Amino acid sequence: MKKTSRKVVVVGTGFVGTSIAYSMINQGIVNELVLIDVNQEKAEGEALDLLDGVSWGQENVDVWSGDYEECHDADVVVITAGANQKPGQTRLELVDINASIMKSIVQKIMDTGFDGILLVASNPVDVLTYVAWKTSGFPANRVLGTGTTLDTTRFRKELAAKLKIDPRSIHGYIIGEHGDSEVAVWSHTTVGGKPILEFIVKNNRLGIEDLALISDRVKNAAYEIIDRKQATYYGIGMSTARIVKAVLNNEQAVLPVSSYLNGEYGESGLFTGVPSVVNQSGVREIIELNIDANEQLQFRESVKQLRQVIESLEH
Amino acid sequence: MKKTSRKVVVVGTGFVGTSIAYSMINQGIVNELVLIDVNQEKAEGEALDLLDGVSWGQENVDVWSGDYEECHDADVVVITAGANQKPGQTRLELVDINASIMKSIVQKIMDTGFDGILLVASNPVDVLTYVAWKTSGFPANRVLGTGTTLDTTRFRKELAAKLKIDPRSIHGYIIGEHGDSEVAVWSHTTVGGKPILEFIVKNNRLGIEDLALISDRVKNAAYEIIDRKQATYYGIGMSTARIVKAVLNNEQAVLPVSSYLNGEYGESGLFTGVPSVVNQSGVREIIELNIDANEQLQFRESVKQLRQVIESLEH
Amino acid sequence: MKKTSRKVVVVGTGFVGTSIAYSMINQGIVNELVLIDVNQEKAEGEALDLLDGVSWGQENVDVWSGDYEECHDADVVVITAGANQKPGQTRLELVDINASIMKSIVQKIMDTGFDGILLVASNPVDVLTYVAWKTSGFPANRVLGTGTTLDTTRFRKELAAKLKIDPRSIHGYIIGEHGDSEVAVWSHTTVGGKPILEFIVKNNRLGIEDLALISDRVKNAAYEIIDRKQATYYGIGMSTARIVKAVLNNEQAVLPVSSYLNGEYGESGLFTGVPSVVNQSGVREIIELNIDANEQLQFRESVKQLRQVIESLEH
Amino acid sequence: MKKTSRKVVVVGTGFVGTSIAYSMINQGIVNELVLIDVNQEKAEGEALDLLDGVSWGQENVDVWSGDYEECHDADVVVITAGANQKPGQTRLELVDINASIMKSIVQKIMDTGFDGILLVASNPVDVLTYVAWKTSGFPANRVLGTGTTLDTTRFRKELAAKLKIDPRSIHGYIIGEHGDSEVAVWSHTTVGGKPILEFIVKNNRLGIEDLALISDRVKNAAYEIIDRKQATYYGIGMSTARIVKAVLNNEQAVLPVSSYLNGEYGESGLFTGVPSVVNQSGVREIIELNIDANEQLQFRESVKQLRQVIESLEH
Repeated sequence: MKKTSRKVVVVGTGFVGTSIAYSMINQGIVNELVLIDVNQEKAEGEALDLLDGVSWGQENVDVWSGDYEECHDADVVVITAGANQKPGQTRLELVDINASIMKSIVQKIMDTGFDGILLVASNPVDVLTYVAWKTSGFPANRVLGTGTTLDTTRFRKELAAKLKIDPRSIHGYIIGEHGDSEVAVWSHTTVGGKPILEFIVKNNRLGIEDLALISDRVKNAAYEIIDRKQATYYGIGMSTARIVKAVLNNEQAVLPVSSYLNGEYGESGLFTGVPSVVNQSGVREIIELNIDANEQLQFRESVKQLRQVIESLEH
Repeated sequence: MKKTSRKVVVVGTGFVGTSIAYSMINQGIVNELVLIDVNQEKAEGEALDLLDGVSWGQENVDVWSGDYEECHDADVVVITAGANQKPGQTRLELVDINASIMKSIVQKIMDTGFDGILLVASNPVDVLTYVAWKTSGFPANRVLGTGTTLDTTRFRKELAAKLKIDPRSIHGYIIGEHGDSEVAVWSHTTVGGKPILEFIVKNNRLGIEDLALISDRVKNAAYEIIDRKQATYYGIGMSTARIVKAVLNNEQAVLPVSSYLNGEYGESGLFTGVPSVVNQSGVREIIELNIDANEQLQFRESVKQLRQVIESLEH
Repeated sequence: MKKTSRKVVVVGTGFVGTSIAYSMINQGIVNELVLIDVNQEKAEGEALDLLDGVSWGQENVDVWSGDYEECHDADVVVITAGANQKPGQTRLELVDINASIMKSIVQKIMDTGFDGILLVASNPVDVLTYVAWKTSGFPANRVLGTGTTLDTTRFRKELAAKLKIDPRSIHGYIIGEHGDSEVAVWSHTTVGGKPILEFIVKNNRLGIEDLALISDRVKNAAYEIIDRKQATYYGIGMSTARIVKAVLNNEQAVLPVSSYLNGEYGESGLFTGVPSVVNQSGVREIIELNIDANEQLQFRESVKQLRQVIESLEH
Repeated sequence: MKKTSRKVVVVGTGFVGTSIAYSMINQGIVNELVLIDVNQEKAEGEALDLLDGVSWGQENVDVWSGDYEECHDADVVVITAGANQKPGQTRLELVDINASIMKSIVQKIMDTGFDGILLVASNPVDVLTYVAWKTSGFPANRVLGTGTTLDTTRFRKELAAKLKIDPRSIHGYIIGEHGDSEVAVWSHTTVGGKPILEFIVKNNRLGIEDLALISDRVKNAAYEIIDRKQATYYGIGMSTARIVKAVLNNEQAVLPVSSYLNGEYGESGLFTGVPSVVNQSGVREIIELNIDANEQLQFRESVKQLRQVIESLEH
């Protein structure tokens, strides 16, 4: 008999993990939702709080906390676990620590016989997606990172606010590292189908001088939010839920997830945020945009930085 | 020309306020969402974080932070603000403080010419709904509290877990104070239409001895969650979003909100959680259940406690 | 690797079949939707028309027409095919014809190695669900009919209109044959938890004299609609989509589908509409209501009539 | 007090009108839905059938049939009424007849004091939207036609099928007349942000030779469907519901509705399908794409044909 219910496991019940879970429950994306955390009591409390709202929602979702054994028959496992930077700690030291945590988690997941899709939402996401892939032994398409999905929605939001247009009618991507070296692909950004660079000529709401400003605002959005609320989690919550939905519904939707490059954009052997066709097998293919010379330079630089971190990990 | 977009203001951007907001965005219930907080920077950060996810969601929602002037043309204002109990502070002292805060907030809301529905989600919710009503000068139907909506969904959840049945097919209410004196209306609880007391006879998943246990678990659910995660907010987030949806869509749905009693259940002159028909005018009518003698006793006791607190406030 | 997308096949592309399909697309219930009809061109046209709207909807759904081979890996097959009564034809003659059609269809479905859930929406639905089950060789839980789901929603609608209350807050069932002998279970009908018989005492919108009227209106609803538009299909479309959703999401929801009685309500060996827990295995269990003496009499009569038709088929 | 419920009136209860209504109910877009038809009995039957499913849906919707007086407080009125071509009748004769019908309907709507948005779904849609506007006395932004929304979703569907990509990740428009002279804007069609013309270079699923084929298939889609099922209504049903949703939710979404040209694309004084920002005031602005020379030629020709028909009506 068929099993049609969808089971998603979220590893890590910090604010990011629970915001992903809460978004999935509110949108009715999943039928079984399991939370895992080293702090089992915390995971238990979160599961209880999340389950409380279900009967007022649109869909029945069963929520519980458990251990890695739950991954055995999961369709998607989302990993949000990771340490935060401590005072005096360098960024590279942090990467080392989180890479170790990621290896350990993925090892535990794979030991259960897990046969679904791995989605990494821990930072630095591109590097940790690589680590997750290496540890998993999975073909690269079955391991994704949240990549630049959050940066991309921030990008659309900034343009939407300026232009007073539904962000869902604004198309364009941030690509590359989810971080300071990310690249705004202005050359392929459109508003209702119209290239943004043409759009601004006739539009008094957005000028050419706004573009750099917007790229910067997108890049610094996390800092701006952290300054005000000490953390960011709702944006990444909905972005990650969006990816899970695309996988579970076999959507073939194009999303800028962290995907394994194999020659696309002239790069190979690492994961980073690029528009990718997402379905129940993970990443089916990468959409390779003919980005302009300046964007290419920036993308190459972004990839170079990622590569250095990855290499530092492997030594 | 018609204005058809719906505007909701959430006052207070603690975890409860933002969980309500995030739920409404994920479910696409509202078109304009404004956050107000004494800590304006916090409100600003929350609005930015919430807005980040919108373009990956199902509906365009504009989110921003602002001041009370935003209430002027709002359809619903949800109040979540309030102080937490401090060490050495009695419960009654806390009520005094929160009543003052509520008065001050509602006064500011009313000063803008607000002409919508007031929904109170601050605790103690029944008392503060009364305070909000008194301050507002509104007819009682236009002021609601979240009442026992959360307790009711917890009640259904407990039964659903025992019986392995969709909580949305389990009907029954917790009524009275949202707190220790609340009443589980077992006499009117049904599972797929079957009275729960008949259900347990033939069912090996639930025994008569489980009933008191379940009532207790519901009553103590908040404590259990707080023990594990230091707070509860997701359950109340979805419960409150559910009420807002019923108002905005003029649903005429029956929900156990905190409503003004005017003779129903033999009580008058205060607000408490009872099944009520909710529509765009707030509470259209109360459904008066013929609760059994024991439930009546408990309900009377619950109301008595609420009345004492209200009277203490008025002296 | 996991297959998480859901595939539903609809056999028969009359108005009922396509209304079910259109409802499922609009609600985003399914990912792959296949239409089968003896008139292949018709099926092709319907699939093209249905697919046209998808890109403006909330979820990507692939729709195509095909042959029975498509059932091989389907999660649910909905059967809507059947002949209409011709002038001079008796009702029993029609049953004979439709039973033959049902046998032939189910045989073709089973020949593909189909391993999902069979949902019968053809009339007379209780009899044809029995025929489908017998032909399938499946355990009884894996074969369901739409039963009295439509009659039940009509029942709630009538009460909702009288009482000005959201029909989703009105609980109660029509049980027995989907047809003239169906039974309104007034004894277990509640409005916001309150038994309807108590409700009418204090309510000037509904009197005791309305009850028989409402039962009659429900029973005759189809005739009233057919008088005005020559057919009925939207109501059954949404009712059937609701059942499919409960199966695919493993909801454990209670719905009055046509289920196999095995002692429940004192009857055995046939299918009829009774509240049943629906999940991905079909009908998990029947909720047996302690219906009152009058309802028992009516139900026994309804079952008797069904049994006579079934026996006539088997001779 | 605020009225937040949304009321939509659909004039004409042929298959198009009822498919729009059914889509809106299934998607929970509207709270009050009224059907008007010269055949009042038909309208009554459709309302009854549509209302039957509501209690199994996601949102409470009240549905009834009525007369034009219902437009008085409606937010949106959708007009689907119109005659079909009769044997021996020329296309222009048909236009004359339908223009008269449109005038008469709009007059009746305006006589009620209607103050919402007029949405025309009758054919020939661009011409009849013009007629509706002239009769209404409304500013042009408050009158829209369904334009090329259906053609555009067909266009995306064709590309989606070829490329195996979610049609919602394919952006591009059909513009101009909803009819034989419509224009596929290949120059501004993108797949996951990548211009389609670049896309096909590296893609073995779609060749340059497919483009003309796809434009033709889109243009002839209606004929193909009519050949097979004698009518088309589901595609236009979802497309129209999409527009209503954008208006009611004040989305600022870009949709290719039939909008009044006032110099955009070098044309003025008539309505035709062009990407437009849709909100609660109707069409807020038109997005003017820099279409290529060939597309400009075709668009001019399309507009010329529309102008001729309009002029023939005015003489």
